[in-house]
Amino acid sequence: MNFTKMQGLGNDFVVIDAINQQIQLTAEQIRFLANRHFGVGCDQLLLVEKPISANAEFKYRIFNADGSEVAQCGNGARCFARFVRDKGLSNKDEITVDTDARQLTLRFDEGGLITVEMGVPALEPKQIPLKVSERSKLYTVKLAEIEIEFAAVSMGNPHAVIRVDDVANAPVSSVGAQLERHELFPERANIGFMQIVNRRQIKLRVYERGAAETLACGSGACAAVVAGIEQGLLDQNVQVQLPGGELIISWTGSGHPVLMTGAAATVFEGQIKL
Amino acid sequence: MNFTKMQGLGNDFVVIDAINQQIQLTAEQIRFLANRHFGVGCDQLLLVEKPISANAEFKYRIFNADGSEVAQCGNGARCFARFVRDKGLSNKDEITVDTDARQLTLRFDEGGLITVEMGVPALEPKQIPLKVSERSKLYTVKLAEIEIEFAAVSMGNPHAVIRVDDVANAPVSSVGAQLERHELFPERANIGFMQIVNRRQIKLRVYERGAAETLACGSGACAAVVAGIEQGLLDQNVQVQLPGGELIISWTGSGHPVLMTGAAATVFEGQIKL
Repeated sequence: MNFTKMQGLGNDFVVIDAINQQIQLTAEQIRFLANRHFGVGCDQLLLVEKPISANAEFKYRIFNADGSEVAQCGNGARCFARFVRDKGLSNKDEITVDTDARQLTLRFDEGGLITVEMGVPALEPKQIPLKVSERSKLYTVKLAEIEIEFAAVSMGNPHAVIRVDDVANAPVSSVGAQLERHELFPERANIGFMQIVNRRQIKLRVYERGAAETLACGSGACAAVVAGIEQGLLDQNVQVQLPGGELIISWTGSGHPVLMTGAAATVFEGQIKL
Repeated sequence: MNFTKMQGLGNDFVVIDAINQQIQLTAEQIRFLANRHFGVGCDQLLLVEKPISANAEFKYRIFNADGSEVAQCGNGARCFARFVRDKGLSNKDEITVDTDARQLTLRFDEGGLITVEMGVPALEPKQIPLKVSERSKLYTVKLAEIEIEFAAVSMGNPHAVIRVDDVANAPVSSVGAQLERHELFPERANIGFMQIVNRRQIKLRVYERGAAETLACGSGACAAVVAGIEQGLLDQNVQVQLPGGELIISWTGSGHPVLMTGAAATVFEGQIKL
């Protein structure tokens, strides 16, 4: 089987063309491929397939390293777009693709960056879900040793965003682990720690639900910028500096989708016997 | 550049033919190749070169993920042997190779296993080095909360071997971290936790110097079996069960080299632009 190893901000993927190759992967094979010592190693595996909808060019499916299928991943979407273009599977500047969650539009920008339409953020507590009686721009919670203020946003997955003065010294592991599983979040939450540099630039670290801190969380970047704009602290286009690299997040306000722009790179081509 | 990803008991390697390819790698390129999110990902990189000595078939060099060159690695030696055979670079059943430390002899056994001659163990405190006045089969040390008995062996690198009743519940991280840097070991030490199943079988976990617990430490398996034989607890051929898989260690006693036999597997072939 041929595969391509790719990464977007250090979030790394094994990408497989399942259109020109006959591919049927078991969960066990996916776990093997994702294993960093015994297999190829990746955060997630992307399978590029024929579209389901008439207006789409492809479908792609995303599998976690444990073999389970998931709905979407922003860094993966950019890698998918780079893959179909580099492999000559599409030469359009804008690609419509089916995913298990919804249709996505991917756009190639000048300079090789790729923009992904990340969907409309939801701020109502029930949609996040967040167990509070009323919607608010900031909520308060008492943890073991401290009281924390946070904003809550759903980007299809639940996010809490905490503003900090210095992201390098933020208590990402301790507060992240406590708040991720707090009873306020019945489906748990991704916890972002945002340092506002100015109205067009933030620094962000994210404790991902079920994973701990990661190099770059695309939906977390979107949630942080939405929270910052809602609080009147950020403009419509914001550069987000994450440990793995940088993203541009754009949002024109309530009811509009969030756009995420960033790089995606091919690392190497590989052949493996399964 | 073409490379092959291999593993021995989960200890994984990027192996590069530097005989048929013009290869000059900088430390920065090695760090990139070894990076599991931005590069290929591996514990170590092996460079297969032409021999220096008249009686050797190859030289190979080993680089850690931080770009530094190291002298030897037992799991890497087996992967090297599998590589030169699978690539058709040698069809001999026994291969003599130059390394930076010394010449190695590698032998192909029936069933695809590979035997590496791991050198003569040293038990004198000065050679390990261990700061005690007299050589003994067991030494005692007081750590923060407990008193520990250990044996000490050098396999070219210093090892402490602690006997435990149940390796699954051994305090590998806490005792390993304390003893690794204890003043008794001026060059620090690898700390093995050995459960004796019977005279021909042990279970072993190793806290590696500068790395924490690993899936499989070849020299640690040798040190544990030497310590067990010295204490009269083990026979000459011992199966060692490590978290990453199993090795057979053979030692005929003082002054003789230790032989290590185990598997080595090719995971995939890759091509990367540097």
